[in-house]
Amino acid sequence: MTTKAARIEQAQKYIAELKTLHPCLYDKSFLRTWDQSPDDLRTVVLVAEILEELYEANVSCRLFDGGLAVSNFRDNSTRTRFSFASAATLLGLDLSDLDEGKSQIAHGETVRETTNMISFMTEVIGIRDDKWLGEGHAYQVEVAQAVEEGFKEGVLPRKPCLVNLQCDEDHPTQAMADLIHLIKHFGGIDQLKGKKVAMTWAYSPSYGKPLSVPQGIIGLLPRFGIDVHLAYPEGYDLIPEVVETAKKNAALAGAKFEVSHDMDAAFKDADVVYPKSWCPHSIMLERVKLPSREGPEQVALEKKALEMNTKHKDWECTEEKMKLTKGGNALYMHCLPADITGVSCKEGEVQASVFEKDRIKTYKEASHKPYVIASMILTSKLKNPAAALEHLIKQDKPRAPEF
Amino acid sequence: MTTKAARIEQAQKYIAELKTLHPCLYDKSFLRTWDQSPDDLRTVVLVAEILEELYEANVSCRLFDGGLAVSNFRDNSTRTRFSFASAATLLGLDLSDLDEGKSQIAHGETVRETTNMISFMTEVIGIRDDKWLGEGHAYQVEVAQAVEEGFKEGVLPRKPCLVNLQCDEDHPTQAMADLIHLIKHFGGIDQLKGKKVAMTWAYSPSYGKPLSVPQGIIGLLPRFGIDVHLAYPEGYDLIPEVVETAKKNAALAGAKFEVSHDMDAAFKDADVVYPKSWCPHSIMLERVKLPSREGPEQVALEKKALEMNTKHKDWECTEEKMKLTKGGNALYMHCLPADITGVSCKEGEVQASVFEKDRIKTYKEASHKPYVIASMILTSKLKNPAAALEHLIKQDKPRAPEF
Amino acid sequence: MTTKAARIEQAQKYIAELKTLHPCLYDKSFLRTWDQSPDDLRTVVLVAEILEELYEANVSCRLFDGGLAVSNFRDNSTRTRFSFASAATLLGLDLSDLDEGKSQIAHGETVRETTNMISFMTEVIGIRDDKWLGEGHAYQVEVAQAVEEGFKEGVLPRKPCLVNLQCDEDHPTQAMADLIHLIKHFGGIDQLKGKKVAMTWAYSPSYGKPLSVPQGIIGLLPRFGIDVHLAYPEGYDLIPEVVETAKKNAALAGAKFEVSHDMDAAFKDADVVYPKSWCPHSIMLERVKLPSREGPEQVALEKKALEMNTKHKDWECTEEKMKLTKGGNALYMHCLPADITGVSCKEGEVQASVFEKDRIKTYKEASHKPYVIASMILTSKLKNPAAALEHLIKQDKPRAPEF
Repeated sequence: MTTKAARIEQAQKYIAELKTLHPCLYDKSFLRTWDQSPDDLRTVVLVAEILEELYEANVSCRLFDGGLAVSNFRDNSTRTRFSFASAATLLGLDLSDLDEGKSQIAHGETVRETTNMISFMTEVIGIRDDKWLGEGHAYQVEVAQAVEEGFKEGVLPRKPCLVNLQCDEDHPTQAMADLIHLIKHFGGIDQLKGKKVAMTWAYSPSYGKPLSVPQGIIGLLPRFGIDVHLAYPEGYDLIPEVVETAKKNAALAGAKFEVSHDMDAAFKDADVVYPKSWCPHSIMLERVKLPSREGPEQVALEKKALEMNTKHKDWECTEEKMKLTKGGNALYMHCLPADITGVSCKEGEVQASVFEKDRIKTYKEASHKPYVIASMILTSKLKNPAAALEHLIKQDKPRAPEF
Repeated sequence: MTTKAARIEQAQKYIAELKTLHPCLYDKSFLRTWDQSPDDLRTVVLVAEILEELYEANVSCRLFDGGLAVSNFRDNSTRTRFSFASAATLLGLDLSDLDEGKSQIAHGETVRETTNMISFMTEVIGIRDDKWLGEGHAYQVEVAQAVEEGFKEGVLPRKPCLVNLQCDEDHPTQAMADLIHLIKHFGGIDQLKGKKVAMTWAYSPSYGKPLSVPQGIIGLLPRFGIDVHLAYPEGYDLIPEVVETAKKNAALAGAKFEVSHDMDAAFKDADVVYPKSWCPHSIMLERVKLPSREGPEQVALEKKALEMNTKHKDWECTEEKMKLTKGGNALYMHCLPADITGVSCKEGEVQASVFEKDRIKTYKEASHKPYVIASMILTSKLKNPAAALEHLIKQDKPRAPEF
Repeated sequence: MTTKAARIEQAQKYIAELKTLHPCLYDKSFLRTWDQSPDDLRTVVLVAEILEELYEANVSCRLFDGGLAVSNFRDNSTRTRFSFASAATLLGLDLSDLDEGKSQIAHGETVRETTNMISFMTEVIGIRDDKWLGEGHAYQVEVAQAVEEGFKEGVLPRKPCLVNLQCDEDHPTQAMADLIHLIKHFGGIDQLKGKKVAMTWAYSPSYGKPLSVPQGIIGLLPRFGIDVHLAYPEGYDLIPEVVETAKKNAALAGAKFEVSHDMDAAFKDADVVYPKSWCPHSIMLERVKLPSREGPEQVALEKKALEMNTKHKDWECTEEKMKLTKGGNALYMHCLPADITGVSCKEGEVQASVFEKDRIKTYKEASHKPYVIASMILTSKLKNPAAALEHLIKQDKPRAPEF
């Protein structure tokens, strides 16, 4: 077990590095990693890592003495919900969930209004809106504009920042947590260059899943020098513009970026595999065009998506496939929950023995998310996060009682 | 932008005035403004204004180190819900929402019991119960009696105060926020005397809305010397007793109080217009008499209400009607959300251009509500609010980190 | 009214006694009272009583500077929900409710995973799972194993403790609150020996209620020397193993433990009566075997349970029956809500006049629950609760403002 002194020392090293960076995060929202500079991303990672050290050293990180952290989950969530709640309690904010169930947020006018109405004492709004292609990110932009206007016009004493808790394009809190997992796994951010990640589709019988996780991975990892091989069956394309941006950023960072329809080629010599199901692209496009967001037509379309999936049951992460990876021993990653063959479904994304080998590691992968969210909040709220973190260390207030 | 020093100075001026008043708010619940003395109302306004200055100056107002703020929303709410949550986090209380969905609160016995069961560590209970005429206020009185008994009998270590978050009779947190909006708009509470407010019905296609907002306005504003002209189509009477009380109080304060069925007459030379839909009185009376609170009979009655409304589509706040007001330039007010013609409905309460002109102002109008609620809590909980507020200023603890 | 000084003095006496005990509560979960030693139980009682004195003396007990208290209510709850929320706010934890409604927790794998996902910053998980015989306790054990593994494997920085908020076997927070009620009623824990409690079934028309309350009572009270007479109609057996354990523990403590089908015999010379309905045993066994947890078969079975109940309407706690008790004046206890004849139902568990006589006392009985929960949290989280409590007294920070 790491001692408190060692953790504080580690945190101070991170802070020293933090001071060398020039991010533009202050007073901004965090919607997509590809809107951020390398220094922005490095800053969010470092602050997350520092908060993690401080939490584990039992040093209170409550920089706020109240204020609201508002969440708006337009799609189910347990994991991210608790990560957001954790970030709030870590920083001293009080969670308030906006349940749209009965309030109607239909057109621009009302988004603008509701946003202001929930923001009078709000420091951060976390939004999950991942179901409808072309809408999730657009909605978050609209909310961001609304708080901008509200603040500018003097309605809001302070401007809440937005944290994207998954949209149709990106899932930045997941991708950043995944990145931190890789940093810890390989022993440092400088160890990532040249590592190969296989981001592949995998078979799922459960439901037509969003595209944001694979998009988040290809959008983020190459920027840290990681080679990515994206593989999926024909018909399962990601959003073309997102892939284009990922390619361009990979090139800038000198990372390889391949796309194929060959799971084996992706797995070949990979250091890391990330086999994960998503919905056929054509279905995603059809979904948003249906006259209603619920009802039998949507159910029929969902059924069609699952039927399409059944043609690709061989896209399973098996022991056999794992043998193709580097040393037969690649790190298995997943955003959870995974569809595990024989455990959570009859046939799924991953063979039970493969999952079980790295099961605990997938939990650790997820464990960074609360700190990533807290980091996104702090780096938006503070001009000088390093000074705030040094203050916490100096203050040295126990979070949990030490009796 | 106002400096912190200027805000503190302003807060201190308000505190000085606060010390001259003799309110009877301590240890009481706040159910209807007409149960309160002028000094009570003035106190609630001042404390709300002080809290607003302190929040904007980033001075922590957390006087409580824990304790529950319990909300019970028996009707949908987003705005008031977030205002209550904001007041709780402002003062250091933790929000706990009582979801009656599955617990049965049917007869007196059980209200009494449930009230005690949720109150062991509760400082305030906020209740919204506005749908059923003759019941909302009565329910709140019953809850108030239950905490009184529980405290007296030693069940409750402390007596929670009640804050009416809208009942069938009054909507005091709204009306008080509206009052503060007018104070800010006209440049001081001493500027209100002789101003004319047109509180009028307006057409809505959305649903049969409660009477509490217009009743709250006519009940409160005349007490500050504001002349009120209440206008509505025949059949849309408010509760007669409430109107009687409003008339009496207007007379006492030397304010004019007119009632007519003429929207134009109300708008004529008005400084402020408040066009807002409500349900026909006869329908409100029928609603409570139906054997069930849900089901087809209620739906049919609701449909009848909307049909009655359609006969009065000319009760719309148009540019044309606005020309009748003082200088053609009255302040437009609304408790939100408004039914805006061509925006949130085909035909509604207000023309889009009229709404848009004062849209931001309606947001500011709403922005005072968290402070009004917090003020109602503090003035009930503290014998000496002025001393507590001075303590906060002296303590000068930042709410949000200043790094 | 007791003064603050007197309360602090009383708390200090309790702390002195606390220091003489040797509990094994640290780092453990609290699932069933019969898993705990006498010193464990005495410790939980004392810490609860100390917290109650400190709360009433307005001394802040916020030992935590944030962290989550997660609740998972798999059955409806208002009372226990607010008790858990109260314990959280008392100690400085933030409440987060896990709504399983839409997340699927179906097999072991997923319980293990979800448990870790909600526990990254969690100090305590409170679970209510009382509906299905043979499952509630088993589920809690599974969750306890999951946090154990997560902590051991380094997924969780700290290990959350579990607090059983009612399972199929025990309802320890209720039973411990009931115990404290008896301690206060009889003037000390040393006054309990030889007192007779009649724990009896009673008629209810409302629903087939869990067995955990009577099981909790017979499992706990005899260990403090209280004689228990358990009486119920034929067919209403409790879980045999639980009754066996209770018998054994009663013998160890030198308490009488009788079981009969005779309500009058139970009431005869009783100091305390606890008449309370529960579901026929055979129905409880059938319930879990039905193919589905919802739907018409479950409804039909519930109907059958209520029909069986109707054969025993004479199991009512009447004035007549009360005359059989010691001095005709036994203390009436209930976990609430009670089915009160002529008040909450036509015919029920207790005659209205009997209930009314001790109604306020049943509220007080319930009022200890928040402190019992907080005590279970503290005694698991702290190696030295006495030192922590002395620290709170020395710190003497007001919870509510004293202006």
